[in-house]
Amino acid sequence: MAKKDVAKQALALHKKLGGKIRIVPAAPIRNRAELSLVYTPGVAAVSSYVAKNPKEARAYTMKGRMVAVISDGSAVLGLGNIGALGALPVMEGKAAIFKTFADIDTVPIVLDLSTTVEAGMQAEIDAIVETVIRIAPAFGGINLEDIAAPKCFEIERRVIDALDIPVMHDDQHGTAIVVLAAILNGLKVVKKRLSLARLVVLGAGAAGKATADLLHAAGAKDIIVLDSKGIVNSSRPEPHKRALARMNKRKIKGGLHDALKGADVFLGVSGPNLVKAEDIKLMAKKAIVLAMANPTPEIMPDEAKRGGALIVGTGRSDFPNQINNSLAFPGVFRGALDHGVRKITTEIKLKAAYAIAKLVPHPSANRIVPDMFDKRVATAVAKAIR
Amino acid sequence: MAKKDVAKQALALHKKLGGKIRIVPAAPIRNRAELSLVYTPGVAAVSSYVAKNPKEARAYTMKGRMVAVISDGSAVLGLGNIGALGALPVMEGKAAIFKTFADIDTVPIVLDLSTTVEAGMQAEIDAIVETVIRIAPAFGGINLEDIAAPKCFEIERRVIDALDIPVMHDDQHGTAIVVLAAILNGLKVVKKRLSLARLVVLGAGAAGKATADLLHAAGAKDIIVLDSKGIVNSSRPEPHKRALARMNKRKIKGGLHDALKGADVFLGVSGPNLVKAEDIKLMAKKAIVLAMANPTPEIMPDEAKRGGALIVGTGRSDFPNQINNSLAFPGVFRGALDHGVRKITTEIKLKAAYAIAKLVPHPSANRIVPDMFDKRVATAVAKAIR
Repeated sequence: MAKKDVAKQALALHKKLGGKIRIVPAAPIRNRAELSLVYTPGVAAVSSYVAKNPKEARAYTMKGRMVAVISDGSAVLGLGNIGALGALPVMEGKAAIFKTFADIDTVPIVLDLSTTVEAGMQAEIDAIVETVIRIAPAFGGINLEDIAAPKCFEIERRVIDALDIPVMHDDQHGTAIVVLAAILNGLKVVKKRLSLARLVVLGAGAAGKATADLLHAAGAKDIIVLDSKGIVNSSRPEPHKRALARMNKRKIKGGLHDALKGADVFLGVSGPNLVKAEDIKLMAKKAIVLAMANPTPEIMPDEAKRGGALIVGTGRSDFPNQINNSLAFPGVFRGALDHGVRKITTEIKLKAAYAIAKLVPHPSANRIVPDMFDKRVATAVAKAIR
Repeated sequence: MAKKDVAKQALALHKKLGGKIRIVPAAPIRNRAELSLVYTPGVAAVSSYVAKNPKEARAYTMKGRMVAVISDGSAVLGLGNIGALGALPVMEGKAAIFKTFADIDTVPIVLDLSTTVEAGMQAEIDAIVETVIRIAPAFGGINLEDIAAPKCFEIERRVIDALDIPVMHDDQHGTAIVVLAAILNGLKVVKKRLSLARLVVLGAGAAGKATADLLHAAGAKDIIVLDSKGIVNSSRPEPHKRALARMNKRKIKGGLHDALKGADVFLGVSGPNLVKAEDIKLMAKKAIVLAMANPTPEIMPDEAKRGGALIVGTGRSDFPNQINNSLAFPGVFRGALDHGVRKITTEIKLKAAYAIAKLVPHPSANRIVPDMFDKRVATAVAKAIR
């Protein structure tokens, strides 16, 4: 389907649906007897019990099955800072995916800070953190979504510290998990080892930072990260970029060409059309190119192949190797809810990535990750998390 | 069913259900083509469109059909300030009622202010107001619920002023609407006129204040309101009580006995067992007694009758004349969503009450309001609101 047709059809479908989720009672209310159990007077006993035994809320209320997907609309898809209402269709879509892929009930929440918060990033961070903490009691998990870097880092860290439910900024860690799975299987195909591989990450935002961190935790030792100004180094003003600079083991300086020379893996988490076939030609033999910018990748698969890449993955459904967060987040939260996980640790993210990779026992150049609609994925990821 | 059995059964049901609502996708996601419309890449067109045309959010997102029911758990049923988790089963029950009675999708949100707000009522008010404003974009209406007086008044007023969606504190106005409907029909039965009737309201909290106001707006001229210290007067510290004192046309002083002498209507919105048959004996002939404390009313119906009351109503389902907010709030929000109503004005509340009363064209002592399960109610209330 052409891009324009997809847009047109999507608009028509959304107008027809009038919102992509519905809320339905879990038990019917057909008569007074049923109402007296679901609501007053019966509900008073449940409220008293839960108030006195807060840990029982997971068993007796929606907290045991509900995740909130929360965004301030500051980094929505490739559209940027389009605000709360613009973010809402995406959050509803995530809720639909959560239910379809992992039977998790998800409430979309989009935040408008315009009238209650003073201008400035720190005030915004404080407001988002306190708002998420205040609305958290009803939820068993929180999926932060489409919040711009660098504020997403502090927000996630503070919310994780404040709450005893799993909290994950999916643009960071969902991406990191699926990319690691893809790279693990990709390296298997080309018979290279992660610990010896040279990796280049174009994009030092939410996804770039978390992916580089997780690759490093998985054993990668040589990771060069670039932002729009070139290879990040220890003089960058942003603390998270200075941290990334430490993974540049060989202390390579300069721009994309300098980074790509002899690289085994290129990961794009930046923007459309930033990379050419000539750039890819600088890479090592049997190069892996994951161009994740969506919907238009950093380089189109045919051009990357022309540059010599052996394995190419994108976020798109119309090419092989679709590397999509939907392979990770439904199973991660399913597992966290099932096993009472309080924090999504690095170990959990690694286990999730290994579980996804393992579902393709014999990877090939055109199949390094499982199909998004493979029903085993969420179950396997959930099971891997204990 | 005995009270203890109801409690036991309610606990068992809630544990079995694990939460009383489920969130389901409005359209299936069975393959890549469907996913590409519900989520990326198709959703990008919808997000861009809605961001540029915020008024279209009602048509293209959940905002057109979703209400948030929000509580801080400070005045839950008769249980008092039991906190966010204790409030959650009640909010879930309301969501189930909203869907069952008016096909409205409702998200329960319970607020925990304990770690992000300094102690003190004003800080709590500010925090609740700003939190509700921040999370409002996804919703087409907000039902504030179980928030204690007097802070509920300022919270409701400020949230109404800040948002362009209907906002209603149901403990105030839902109660006021159904009580007015009941009193209108009750007075019809006993052939008395509202403008000449003497009314006594025991309880100067959320429900007492809003009900007295709405009765006054409907034409009642002689309303005596009492709190736990007696008849409220102009020297009370709370501004809302001083306002109520102005409805005491004959400037009666003292306590319940002084208020009840010659009264035509007694409304209890206070607590259990506060009124005796002897008190009711002080009232005028053909007295109307609405004892709304739930689950144990201010006076049991048989005792009120022994005191000489002709018409008795309660919030309970096991006696005639069950006067329950469920007669009002589903239809009010249904009407507001259907007709694009931005504010729930006094006129709208009056129209809602008249619509409910009118559904019982020939009221009798045992039937002054329609049955809660009468499917015409929500439709009639919604239709009355334009």
